[in-house]
Amino acid sequence: MPKIVDHAERRAALAAAVWEVASRDGLDAVTMRRVAAAAGWSTGALAHYFDDKEELLVFAFETVADRVGRRIVKAAEHTRDPLELIRVQLVEGLAIDSERRAEVRVWFAFLGLAETRPQLAKAGRDAYRVWRDRVAKTLTSAQRQGVVDDSIDAEREAAALIALVDGLAIQATFDPRAVSAERQLEILDDRLARLAIASAR
Amino acid sequence: MPKIVDHAERRAALAAAVWEVASRDGLDAVTMRRVAAAAGWSTGALAHYFDDKEELLVFAFETVADRVGRRIVKAAEHTRDPLELIRVQLVEGLAIDSERRAEVRVWFAFLGLAETRPQLAKAGRDAYRVWRDRVAKTLTSAQRQGVVDDSIDAEREAAALIALVDGLAIQATFDPRAVSAERQLEILDDRLARLAIASAR
Repeated sequence: MPKIVDHAERRAALAAAVWEVASRDGLDAVTMRRVAAAAGWSTGALAHYFDDKEELLVFAFETVADRVGRRIVKAAEHTRDPLELIRVQLVEGLAIDSERRAEVRVWFAFLGLAETRPQLAKAGRDAYRVWRDRVAKTLTSAQRQGVVDDSIDAEREAAALIALVDGLAIQATFDPRAVSAERQLEILDDRLARLAIASAR
Repeated sequence: MPKIVDHAERRAALAAAVWEVASRDGLDAVTMRRVAAAAGWSTGALAHYFDDKEELLVFAFETVADRVGRRIVKAAEHTRDPLELIRVQLVEGLAIDSERRAEVRVWFAFLGLAETRPQLAKAGRDAYRVWRDRVAKTLTSAQRQGVVDDSIDAEREAAALIALVDGLAIQATFDPRAVSAERQLEILDDRLARLAIASAR
């Protein structure tokens, strides 16, 4: 009987294997051999999917971006209020529990590797563009609904909010006691409250 | 005649060699052999200073932190106004010209490597503590002078301001057109202006 394996299923299994290796052993350990082993594949079988380590790293990066993206979409399903939706789109980037701390560590390790890897640099640029567009669109819709001041430049504000979240995640990764989950959320909520206050003027 | 070489001079030469390799070829290239070659030393001579690559990386990280720290101290010499001083302490973290963009790339590459290297993780934690303390102290002194509202928690605000700068630098590194120098400065100055406005209430 021929083995019938769904392509999407294979990619999901690979994504899980890549995530397992990256979050446990760091990105240094993401090699064709180790990922194949974690997926229970031969290195030869993996080579049908990826030409080299750089392609594998780009896939791994997109895997992390997808994890976060899916959580945002899921959380957003239950959210009508545009300011609450902006919060959902940002909170997922903070390092507020062990799952997210692992993601943040891996995320910034990718960004570090992108220094000398053009494909990975492009993936990073695209991921931030998607994130900025998403937040900017929500801000624009909040402006249309009259809950955020029209004078705010949505794209600029989106860049600033994402910057705040990313920067908090970095500090929290190095110093989870000094920049605790509570502190990260306080700072973000304080910032979001000012957006809303601006609309009340 | 014996060769008399000052220890501090040697370290400065090494720091320059490390920076040359890291900024030109990326952190992957920072090895004992390549740094020795860039400094015009033998690998054996370099081994008197560093036991292994991790020690070399920590030194390289501290070299970048020192470059930035020295620029802050120098710029601060001409600054009396505490709000202007806070700006000086933050602007140096933005990716607003080619020198700073190279520093930001190398900085985040280090943070990425720290994922699996405890010494480097400690160096990262210490660097952010120094930066937060510096900004928090300036904020406190601005509060004493009555130019920033007393109700602001200086440590929390310092973490938030540094987070904003770090996050802007990341986005600018990947997408210098979307997050230009002008945009980074606009966002920072807008944020600092609100600190000052709060004091005027």
